[in-house]
Formats: sequence, structure tokens, C-alpha cells
Amino acid sequence: MTERIQDVAHLGRIELLTPKLERSRWYFENLLGMEVAHIAGESVYLRGYGDYAASTLKLTESDRPGVGFVSWRTASPEALERRVKAIQQAGLGDRWHDGEFGRGRAFRFRDPDGHPMELYYEEQKYRAPAHLRSTLKNLPQKYTARGVNVRRIDHLALLCGDVAQNRSFAQATLGFDLREQVLFNNGALELGSWLSPSPVHHQVAYVLDAKGGNGRLHHISLWVDNREDVLRAADILAENGVFIEAGPSKHNNSQGFYLYSYEPGGNRVEVYSGSYLVFAPDWEVVTWNEEERGTGVYWGSPLPDSFINYGTPEVAAGKVAAKKVPVFDPI
Amino acid sequence: MTERIQDVAHLGRIELLTPKLERSRWYFENLLGMEVAHIAGESVYLRGYGDYAASTLKLTESDRPGVGFVSWRTASPEALERRVKAIQQAGLGDRWHDGEFGRGRAFRFRDPDGHPMELYYEEQKYRAPAHLRSTLKNLPQKYTARGVNVRRIDHLALLCGDVAQNRSFAQATLGFDLREQVLFNNGALELGSWLSPSPVHHQVAYVLDAKGGNGRLHHISLWVDNREDVLRAADILAENGVFIEAGPSKHNNSQGFYLYSYEPGGNRVEVYSGSYLVFAPDWEVVTWNEEERGTGVYWGSPLPDSFINYGTPEVAAGKVAAKKVPVFDPI
Amino acid sequence: MTERIQDVAHLGRIELLTPKLERSRWYFENLLGMEVAHIAGESVYLRGYGDYAASTLKLTESDRPGVGFVSWRTASPEALERRVKAIQQAGLGDRWHDGEFGRGRAFRFRDPDGHPMELYYEEQKYRAPAHLRSTLKNLPQKYTARGVNVRRIDHLALLCGDVAQNRSFAQATLGFDLREQVLFNNGALELGSWLSPSPVHHQVAYVLDAKGGNGRLHHISLWVDNREDVLRAADILAENGVFIEAGPSKHNNSQGFYLYSYEPGGNRVEVYSGSYLVFAPDWEVVTWNEEERGTGVYWGSPLPDSFINYGTPEVAAGKVAAKKVPVFDPI
Amino acid sequence: MTERIQDVAHLGRIELLTPKLERSRWYFENLLGMEVAHIAGESVYLRGYGDYAASTLKLTESDRPGVGFVSWRTASPEALERRVKAIQQAGLGDRWHDGEFGRGRAFRFRDPDGHPMELYYEEQKYRAPAHLRSTLKNLPQKYTARGVNVRRIDHLALLCGDVAQNRSFAQATLGFDLREQVLFNNGALELGSWLSPSPVHHQVAYVLDAKGGNGRLHHISLWVDNREDVLRAADILAENGVFIEAGPSKHNNSQGFYLYSYEPGGNRVEVYSGSYLVFAPDWEVVTWNEEERGTGVYWGSPLPDSFINYGTPEVAAGKVAAKKVPVFDPI
Repeated sequence: MTERIQDVAHLGRIELLTPKLERSRWYFENLLGMEVAHIAGESVYLRGYGDYAASTLKLTESDRPGVGFVSWRTASPEALERRVKAIQQAGLGDRWHDGEFGRGRAFRFRDPDGHPMELYYEEQKYRAPAHLRSTLKNLPQKYTARGVNVRRIDHLALLCGDVAQNRSFAQATLGFDLREQVLFNNGALELGSWLSPSPVHHQVAYVLDAKGGNGRLHHISLWVDNREDVLRAADILAENGVFIEAGPSKHNNSQGFYLYSYEPGGNRVEVYSGSYLVFAPDWEVVTWNEEERGTGVYWGSPLPDSFINYGTPEVAAGKVAAKKVPVFDPI
Repeated sequence: MTERIQDVAHLGRIELLTPKLERSRWYFENLLGMEVAHIAGESVYLRGYGDYAASTLKLTESDRPGVGFVSWRTASPEALERRVKAIQQAGLGDRWHDGEFGRGRAFRFRDPDGHPMELYYEEQKYRAPAHLRSTLKNLPQKYTARGVNVRRIDHLALLCGDVAQNRSFAQATLGFDLREQVLFNNGALELGSWLSPSPVHHQVAYVLDAKGGNGRLHHISLWVDNREDVLRAADILAENGVFIEAGPSKHNNSQGFYLYSYEPGGNRVEVYSGSYLVFAPDWEVVTWNEEERGTGVYWGSPLPDSFINYGTPEVAAGKVAAKKVPVFDPI
Repeated sequence: MTERIQDVAHLGRIELLTPKLERSRWYFENLLGMEVAHIAGESVYLRGYGDYAASTLKLTESDRPGVGFVSWRTASPEALERRVKAIQQAGLGDRWHDGEFGRGRAFRFRDPDGHPMELYYEEQKYRAPAHLRSTLKNLPQKYTARGVNVRRIDHLALLCGDVAQNRSFAQATLGFDLREQVLFNNGALELGSWLSPSPVHHQVAYVLDAKGGNGRLHHISLWVDNREDVLRAADILAENGVFIEAGPSKHNNSQGFYLYSYEPGGNRVEVYSGSYLVFAPDWEVVTWNEEERGTGVYWGSPLPDSFINYGTPEVAAGKVAAKKVPVFDPI
Repeated sequence: MTERIQDVAHLGRIELLTPKLERSRWYFENLLGMEVAHIAGESVYLRGYGDYAASTLKLTESDRPGVGFVSWRTASPEALERRVKAIQQAGLGDRWHDGEFGRGRAFRFRDPDGHPMELYYEEQKYRAPAHLRSTLKNLPQKYTARGVNVRRIDHLALLCGDVAQNRSFAQATLGFDLREQVLFNNGALELGSWLSPSPVHHQVAYVLDAKGGNGRLHHISLWVDNREDVLRAADILAENGVFIEAGPSKHNNSQGFYLYSYEPGGNRVEVYSGSYLVFAPDWEVVTWNEEERGTGVYWGSPLPDSFINYGTPEVAAGKVAAKKVPVFDPI
């Protein structure tokens, strides 16, 4: 076994496409309590109060909802070079992009399912303006106590047509660790895989697209520090007429304490806490079969059908695959 | 309007019938963390660490699960006399009973639906043995930190054939205040009513028995101080293989934060926090129609069908009423 | 023993005097998340989202900080008459006042130490404007998720020169129940007494004025539902440069989970949760002597000296009593 | 700049010396809820329910309290070789040790201040016996709900005579990242440094020994998932007569939510949550000078003097250094 080096440090920024930019901004800014860090063209750049980067969520006006560029920060310039080489060898991209707000040049590519991604190293650290400066010197920004006030971006779940293929790509080409898997049919059907480049349980999940689409999003996830914050988030969303799809409750795989709602643009957003950190360098992947997986929850009511069937963008009827997909949930 | 005096002070003790006494004891003692205060014959007397009375829950071995005597403590000896007179006038009971553990004589009667009840005044205050003495002088018993460690008994929900009749009885004969109601068919069908003798939101709920039984129990409810304690309770029940029927989640009516499980004897038990206190002497009853009531939850998944259909004891097929009962939940 | 009737239902509204009205308003509105319900002359009327009354806190511009009228709502018009008669017999007041926002006529009087008080029955229930309407039918107002978002007013603590005298007045003339006491010198020195007209542990505390003043305030207290909300409040106050005097921590007497800060006008304000409800009609008063009382905390650091020595308004040097007052805390 | 590889994966096990083995065991097993995994000779091996390793805390009977071997697991066998070489080059150790419970051979050495340490790679994963098996497949052990039920070991703080020297050793020889520092006298006096081999904020802190001792311990720290769990821990310790030195409260540096008590053997133990993860590969060390540091707390009362002056083992008068050490706290 060759020694493995963690070249990707962490999830950088997620771009979310929305047909209702102003309403989506209201959701993230007023309800979830994120801060607008920058506005450019059709895009609004947001951040959690604990994010060290200038911006970690980019909303871009679009005809349809869905996920735009998902970016990953590497651990060093050398790591960036190594990963770019690996991606080029895999034939998945060969384009450098400059000038994104808050960072240096980025290498653009697509995962096997077609989700647009970026790798970059140079990141601009957030410098809070006076009114957003925290009284804590080690906190990048003031805790404003507006709405949910999510702390930071945590992960995302991507729908795909072939979980094994995309999971292998994340392992081999990006260097992520595999943490948990849902495997049905005695392991023949890989329904979902959870991966991470760091001790955070997962920063990306690949889950089977029940409708046979491509490049679609299941959800993005934002972190709060305590389970009580997730409960409070449910109260806030309910008071503001936002549709809550599921939770607050606890997944069995990942142990994540979740709350899923749809932001006004249609994308599923999770407010999230709990889960667990993985420190073992020789982690044994945890697998769940049909029986172990059950309804995907540790306690509480089963997840609704929409949790399996709904992703963004919605796919036209013609795109729907004929095959029947078993019930599972991509956390 | 005649001035009303609150003659009943609070819910005293609930007797729970169980066909599996030892397993039920294990559930309340080891998982919920209650303390055994007394054992006599087929009965085990339990208490929460914050209950001031010697015992607030009595488990009695029985062929079938269900509720035995529900007792109410009056505010004074005079109040007891007044209420006994009212009950006698209503023709619902005329028997004094002596010698129950921890209290003086009690007047026994039945509510219109047939649930056995008691009224009493003399209550023995709990004096903790040395190993259960709290370091807090105003706490009757040590917080043992075993399992959920529920603080005190809070309320119970009784199934009945005629909600209006039993609700009226609780108001007129026991002197309870009506807090909330679920009224369907433009108010013609009273599905549930929540009442209390004190600022606690409700100490008894009467809800329509979907199966047309008599004297049946929907659930009893035990209090913890914080929502986080309810979440922790879910983890504990799940780790011990106890069936969780619903929650943790939040009801719309009562605002109660609930977790429903079945103790091994079959009775539904709620671990409960939140809700709200009612201080207004001229409280305006809150009513919920079909649309407002929705699925009975403020957020989270709808309550399962069993929440409507299951009560203890279970009724034989022949007892099942033909009429279709709309969906609602008795908190 | 004559049967006692609870004539006072609950604490109504507290008037707080402040030399910095706009800054005080900012504190209660933006940091604690209360809502401005009315403005009249030099006064701003505020409310918690869970308060059923139109307003429960009134800020009035004044040269010096301190407490203005403390009002109590009676359980009925008859109860009001009875209590007014008792106050008149005690020679403590004889004036009816009309026209306060949100309520009918009130009888004005002073407690023995000179704190201005009111008794009233007619209360205007809050009707939320559209943008403040809750999605919960049983919640008077939307949970806005702005700052701490305190739920409701809970209690206040008044400094006085003679605790026994004022405590007796509250018991005999207002009909409050005594819950806990701090008694030093083998009971000869009554340092503090906690009283309530309802199962809420205390709605008023009388505590010895260490500086020998009159009519002064120790603190007012606002309720949140969970301990986690109190911790969050500390973060919010710290982020906004508000001086935190003590807590979050837990008192031994009352078991209250506290956080004390000074609002910009100088008055001490508590964000509060926990404590316990008292249901026993024959409650045995809990007393604390020097040793039992200790530093006034159940755990955590001792309360600072200011907690004993600071009240509003501050008294001039000449007013300072010569006698040494032992350490205690008025919760 | 040479690219750095993270050779140490995480803190492995802490050995705690105690003159009262049975009482110390009671504290960790019954109050903190850890599980005894193994007993050998004078040592008891414990674990948190979320620890993946067989054991993470070893109690060893000893004349005096203090810290024994602190072990670190490397990311691979190659990483172990590299680090051993570095230590040998630094002349700090050259001895391999076999046969410790739950792991393969370990390289023993001392940090510059003399604290005994180990490096190892082979770790035995915990396999729970039937009665301790969790219903969660990704949880190594059942959540028993006994006492505090700490999840896992988090970090420790070591006292030392020269912080800069030991901090440099941890950076250069072990490859840890520096996260925060307390620097007084315009940076001339390094009072404390917090370091970690992973995104966990810190796994070791080096802080100046106010008494001029060597090889002493400030505290070890055990993780719980929510701040509410820390509050609950304070209740549990208080109910069991354990001395609480400070907290629950929040540090400014590290943002850790802390509760410090002394286990019966005399060692300081922290129950801990909150803090923050560090993902940035180019993290800018956060430094605190006298003014910024203040009393070491973000809110709440200042830390007591003992927090600076007490460590284990206590040092004889003759050992006490003449120099005056400024106030600070080693988290």
C-alpha cells in the first residue's frame, strides 16, 4: 500500500442555482442568518459567521434550480498540482478559471456524473467590516443572532446515475476517504456513499438518482453547533412559512441530526449538527444493507417519499429511468 | 358569573396496569430513571426526582394494560369536601378508600366514560433516604443521572366515547379550565379537549376513542426540563430496543415537545417538555378545525396511524365502532 | 386555618426607569428580541412573543434608573375588590388610575418599602398585526428569531430595608405564597424571601438593600424555554458589548438558571430558565442558613460583590447604611 | 516551504496516575459514564462510548496524581518511522515498548519538559460485548446513559517550564499545527500554546507551570456533543459532591465550553464541548496579549486562582519558582 497524502483540505464553496434569487437570498440571509459578503452580476455570495473564507455559498440566478460549481480547496499549491494532474489523466477537465470572488485561479472539471467542480488553493480570508467584527478574536465574524445563524458550510449530497463510478472518482482522483455506504442486493447495488477529505464525517455524498437524471443535487448542508439550534431552526422556518420536508430527527448512517427544507428556489437545504468525527487512519467503512438501513432514521418518523424522489433540477418525464430504485436517503 | 375557586390543585398519581410488571418496572426505573419508592402486593410505586409526593406513578400487574386509578389532589380539606359533594350530586361515585401508600383517605369515582379516579387531600411528602438525598435543599430527591431521569409526572390523555360529556364533567364537577379543543365539522364534532386545574397547560386530555371502547388510555406523560432532554431520551430508548412511535417533534396544539414510546406492558408513554403556562384568568379557549389542525404537528413528519388507533387496553373486534373518526392526536 | 383564595393571578407589567431610553430600547428590542407594542410620551411598551397581554414591560425615560410601577393582575373583578380593600386597610394606597395602555383602571399603592405598585383586572389581550402573526394559533405573536427572543416576563427582585415587613405584606395583603427564604443568624436576619401568586416558583423576591436605600430594584427577569437559550443569550450580549455581571449559571435556591447583565440604562436584567413549579398547596418553605446558602450558586463561580452591592438607582454615599450585610443573592 | 505531511493522526490514550484508584474509577465510570474495557495490575483501562479504540484512558495507581504516558497514534507505519527518527534525532527517546493493552509496539520518549509520551500505529479497534453493542452500526459502543456519558477523549493540557521549547518540539518533531497562543510582554513571554495534529482545535496545550515544576499535568478533557450535556454534567458532579473548580462557561481562546472538576485522585478533568474545527491549511495563529486575554473567559466569572496555581502532582515548596507568572488559563 502506498502512503496516501490528503491533498484536498476541505469543501470550499457551493454554487446554488435559483430561479428566485431575491427570495433565495431572503431565505439564506434572513432565516438562516448568513451574511452577504459580495454581489456580482447575477450572483450573491454568502457566508456563515464561522467560515474563515470570504464566502462559502454562491447563489446564482438561473432558469432552474440545482447545483453549479462545487469547489474544493487543496492543502497546498503542490497538492493542487498533483490533483490537477490526476484529473487531467482521468480526462475530466483541463481548464483553469480566474477571477472568482475571494480566491485565486481554479481548475475546472466535472465529476463522472457531470457535476461541475473546481480545485483551487489560494483563498482570501474573511476580514469583517467594523459592524460585523466579533468580540472573539478567533471568530472571523460576529454572531449576529439573526434567525438560525448557521455557523459554516458542512457538506453536500449529489445525485448520480452510477454511485460506484463517482465514489471511485472521489477516492482515486480527489483522494477522499470513504466512510459509509448503503449497499443493497448483497452488495450488488451501491445506493449511496459518503466521503470526506478530513475528519469531518462526510463532505460529499453520492447517491443514486431515482429519476435517472444527471448532474443533479440532493441537498446542501449548513452546520450549527448544537441539536437545540436545529430545533430552533425548525421553529423559525415554520414561523416563516417555509416547507419543512423532514426532521428535526436523527439519521442512522452518519448519526447526523437533520432538518430538511426547500429554499424558495427549490433546492433542498439541511440545517445540521451532531454526526461524528473520524480520526482512525484505518477506518473500516460502515455498510448498511436493506434491513440495517431501514427507513434511514435512527428514531422518529420515516423519511417522506419526496426525500428519494425530489432533486434539483427536476427532470422531465422523458428523463425518468425505468428501473425501480429502493428506498434510501442521501444525508 | 360566579367566582370560581380552584379546588383541585394538581394531578396526584396515575396507576398504570401492565401484564409485564417486571419489564414495565425496568422501563420506568432503568430507562426513564424513575425511583421505586414502595412495593406492595402486585404494585410498584415510582416517582420522578422532582416530584414532591412520595409516589406519582403506580404500576399494577394486570391481565391487560390500561389505566387504573387517576388521582387528583385538592387544594384543601374544604375543597375536597366541595368536590366530593359535586361528584355525589353527579351520581358518579360515593366511596371512600383508605390506606393507599403515601396518602390519606381518597374518594373514588368514575368519569362519565368509566375511567376510575380519586380525590384526596392528605399527601405524604417524600423524604429521601440518605443515598437519594439531593445536594439541593429544594429538590426532594437526588438527580441520579440514570437514563432519561424524568423530573415529574405532567399529564395524561384519556380516550372516551363522548368528549363533550367528559370535558363538561371535568369543567363542572372537578373545576378544571379548558385550554384547547379540536373541533371538526364546523364545531359539531369535538375530537379532543385539553384541561387543567393549574397554569400547567393541561393535566388531562379527553380524546375520542377511535375504536369505540370505554375507559381506555391514550398516554401518560412525564416531564423533562429541556428539549435536549427529550432528544436524549430518544437516543436512550433506541439504544434499548424500545419502540418509538413518534417524535421527538412538536405538536401544534399545546406546543408540546413530545416523544412517544410504548412501555413493555403496552401503554403509550410520553417524554415531554416545552408547551406553555397559562396565566390568564380569562383565557380564551383555542380551537382547531380540520385545516388548522392539519396533521397535529407543528413541524416534522405527520403522526402515524397508530397514534389514532392504538390505545390500552386494545379492544376486541366486536367493540370497534363503525363510525369513521377523523385524524387527530390527543397530546 | 381559613381557606385561602388566590386573588392575584400573575405579575402584569413592570415599568423600568431609564436615563437612556433609546439605548435601553435597543437592548430590549434588538438584543433580547422583545417587540415594541406601543409608544406614548416618554414611554416605550414592550412584550415577549409569548406574553398574552398587550405589553408586559414599560420603559420610561427618567433621570435615574430604577423600577416604576409594578402591576399585578387579579383573578377576577371580585378579587380586585378584595385586595384593594386589604391594601386600603393597610393604609398603603387609595388611588385609582385610568388610562394605562392595554388595561382598565388600576389601583395604585406602595409596598412598605415604597416601591410603587398597581392592581388591576381588565387586561387587553394582544392581537398581533399581520407581520407578527404566528403560524401557531396558540401563540400570541410570531417567534421572530431576533436576538435572544425572550418568551415572557417572569419575575422581579426588589431591594428593601426590612425583608420581613415587605414579605409579610406580600403574603397578607396580596395573598402571595412564600417559597424560599435566606435566614442568617439562626433565623434572626431575613436576608431574602421569594414569593409567588401561582405555581411559578417566584414572581417577586424581597431582598435586603445592602446600602440602606428605599424603593430600589435588584433585577427584572425574562423567561426563555431552555437552558441552551440562556447560553445563547450570553453569546449575544458578549458580541454586543453588554456587560455580563454573572452567569450563565445555576442558583441553589430557586434552581434558576441565570444570566445577569445591565441594560444600558443601568438596571440589572436576568435572562432566565429552569427553576421549578410549585404545586403543593401545603408547600413547606425552604430556608437556607449561612452554610447552606454558601455563595448562592449551585455550581460555577461565586456571584461577584456587585451582585450584593449594586441596585438601581444607585444611592448616594450618605444613604449607605453602616451595618454590614452578609453575602447573599436575590434571584 | 517544504510540504508538510500530517504524520500523527490523533491523541491515542492518556495515562492518569492516581493515589485513589478505586475512587478515581468510580468518578470516571459512574459519574462520567466511561466503560471499563480492561484491568491489568494496578491499571484500569477506560473508554468513551464513541471512542473507536479499545481504550483511551488508563488509570494507574500511584503515590501521587499526575500524568503518565501520553500516546499518539500515527497515520501509517511509515509515518511512525519518520516520527521516531525525528525524535531520535532530537535525542528525546530511543526505546520501543511492547504489550500495552489494545495496541502494538510503541516508541517511548519524553517531551522537553519531561512528560512521558508514546508513538504507535497498531491500534486494536473496540469490539463491544453483547450488552454494550449499540443499535447504531456506526457507533462502537452503546450509549449507556449512565451519568455524563462522555463520548470520547479530546485533548490534554500540560504544564511546562518553557512553553516555546515544548511548543517547538510539538511542531517540529511531532508535526503538530499551532492554533492559538497567549503571549504577554509584547510577545516576549509565551504563556500558553494550543496545538493539534488534525482539524480538532487542539489536542495538546503547553502552558507555563506557575510553580516551576516539571512533567506536570494541568488537565485532561473529555468530549460531549452539546453544551447542554456540559450543564447536565455540572448537575451530576454537584449531586455527587465532586468539587467543581470552574464552569460551565466559555473560554475566549478556543471557544471551548468547559467544566473543570477534580477527580478523586486530584487530577483536573474537563467535560468539554463547542470550540471549533480548523480546516484552513494556511491557518493564521491567533494570539492573545494581556488585554485581549483578559480573564480567559468569554463570559461568566473569571477563572479562580487555583486554575493557575494547581496542577498534578503538587510540587513541594522548594520547587516553587521565584518568578511571578501572570494570570492565564491553559484550556
